[in-house]
Amino acid sequence: MADTDFRSPAAVRAALVRRTEHVLGYTAPPEELRSAIVDYLASRHDWRVDPSWIVFLPGVVPGLHVSARRLLAPDEHALIPTPVYHHFKRAVELAPRPFSEVPLVLEHGRWAWDLDALRKARTSKTRVLYLCNPQNPGGTVFTPAELTKLAELGCVIVSDEIHCDLVLDDVRHVPIASLSPEISRRTVTLMSANKAFNFPATGCAWAVIEDAGLREAMSADVRSHVLPSPSVFGYEATLAALREGQAWLAAQLDYLRGNRDLVERELPLPMAHVQATYLAWIDARNVPGAHEHFLRHGVALSPGEQFGAPGFVRLNFGTQRDRLREALRRMRSALKPAG
Amino acid sequence: MADTDFRSPAAVRAALVRRTEHVLGYTAPPEELRSAIVDYLASRHDWRVDPSWIVFLPGVVPGLHVSARRLLAPDEHALIPTPVYHHFKRAVELAPRPFSEVPLVLEHGRWAWDLDALRKARTSKTRVLYLCNPQNPGGTVFTPAELTKLAELGCVIVSDEIHCDLVLDDVRHVPIASLSPEISRRTVTLMSANKAFNFPATGCAWAVIEDAGLREAMSADVRSHVLPSPSVFGYEATLAALREGQAWLAAQLDYLRGNRDLVERELPLPMAHVQATYLAWIDARNVPGAHEHFLRHGVALSPGEQFGAPGFVRLNFGTQRDRLREALRRMRSALKPAG
Repeated sequence: MADTDFRSPAAVRAALVRRTEHVLGYTAPPEELRSAIVDYLASRHDWRVDPSWIVFLPGVVPGLHVSARRLLAPDEHALIPTPVYHHFKRAVELAPRPFSEVPLVLEHGRWAWDLDALRKARTSKTRVLYLCNPQNPGGTVFTPAELTKLAELGCVIVSDEIHCDLVLDDVRHVPIASLSPEISRRTVTLMSANKAFNFPATGCAWAVIEDAGLREAMSADVRSHVLPSPSVFGYEATLAALREGQAWLAAQLDYLRGNRDLVERELPLPMAHVQATYLAWIDARNVPGAHEHFLRHGVALSPGEQFGAPGFVRLNFGTQRDRLREALRRMRSALKPAG
Repeated sequence: MADTDFRSPAAVRAALVRRTEHVLGYTAPPEELRSAIVDYLASRHDWRVDPSWIVFLPGVVPGLHVSARRLLAPDEHALIPTPVYHHFKRAVELAPRPFSEVPLVLEHGRWAWDLDALRKARTSKTRVLYLCNPQNPGGTVFTPAELTKLAELGCVIVSDEIHCDLVLDDVRHVPIASLSPEISRRTVTLMSANKAFNFPATGCAWAVIEDAGLREAMSADVRSHVLPSPSVFGYEATLAALREGQAWLAAQLDYLRGNRDLVERELPLPMAHVQATYLAWIDARNVPGAHEHFLRHGVALSPGEQFGAPGFVRLNFGTQRDRLREALRRMRSALKPAG
């Protein structure tokens, strides 16, 4: 699973404890959370958004499903660069809507978009382009130049940026909607503090959507209660994390960076450099039945099939370093020729 | 809103606090919650169910929406006895599916089903019969004889029983699915501890469904993450409430009974006797613009239009008695002829 073995910041836990002392009746998203998100996007990601652009959702995955059902007419087509977190494809499959998967390409050790292939896959019915930035499972943090070229494909852009606060390299995450007013007006950005601060169990997510029509489409299901709103604990955890969790996050990133370096140093398998996330995307095509093989040696990885790339495996290194060392030891042992 | 002004049981709050000390990663419903629900249904409602019949949902309202979309083909028809909690109708409207509203009738001071009218409204395409027991907003606790006759209409039954633990009279709540194995096999029962223990802000609900096909249909959206699962705090609150909240609930019911008696004694307007719930369904058809009129006098009631019955208003008496007394004083004052 793509969560970590770390407790959330003390400020988050304290906020949750405080909230239990109050009546737990129906709640609306607190206005101060809206302001906190606006402040956080400005200060951390240099992105100015209006509070009214924020739509609360119970999770990024339900948001992907809403986007497939509400932004695409039944005959409209989506582009999905792959490998990618499997819920992108599931959302479009279950809607169901026509879509094309377009493989990422490995360029200078980074998984990048194949713009020619994307252009070729585009049809007159293509309306939505999905992206995942930082990329899961590839670990890429896309540059402004890459994002700008991608945006030139046109389309409504649905950008999952849930890993935006988990950048390990000295590069900046750039929200695609922050590139230009024109791109902002056709982008739905899905975000959540669940991942960086590790509280998916209490879930809160939001979409930032400038365009009123797109916003209406993305918020209809929550407004009508087809989809539930986030729980009050999701709101509280998010508010505390954004306001008071930055020192914890800096320490967490240092630790994850150390883990990432350990994985890249110790594992004798090809993998792209992990610029962001706590997930290593490992090329195990030379290891027959890699997922089961490593499992037999006591290491549970996510099978590449799940992301559309058989032969690869995804390692979650968001854990205590001793546990990670042991996992890497077992993987190395699994890779030794049988004696 | 249909929640109360009371804090949840101390055991619930303690369980929530304890949970904050742990990692808040992805969670599955705890197996012990499944057993706790089975034990609670057996001991409190004399209903034997198998743990495997339980499907967790993020709320009863999303459950109503799933039922309308998944149990009815686009041309299949539903029966909805009204007035009723507005999300029944919304769920079928938004699906969208054809449906007929069939008015309840006042019999011996209780809102009851009009079986002849229901039979007449039934078509060859009718597949789902919705019911709300105890009835919201009518306050009726239906008897085994009434439930049996209703079930004879046939159909798949979707029964919202969220108020089942809020029975104020000396009568028993009978889950319709507990009446017979045949009825059980075609019933979806929606339940939650949110209402009785007042923690909708952290939301957990479940459906009890014996039939594997109906269960599959009702669980598909949660399994595919179109709908989120309940938050971990919803699971924890529910587990603590069912296991340790019974003394608190007994005290809460005593208090609500006192409030109910006060409302029935003090308010000079016709209303059915409230057998269950903390909601009084008041006939204000002789008060022009009743909802706005009472609002101008400082009392916010739910307008009857919301439930399909203009001229009625719904009073939530789940509050501190002094506050209720003050509300009743204002309502009486609002009813005095202008001097």
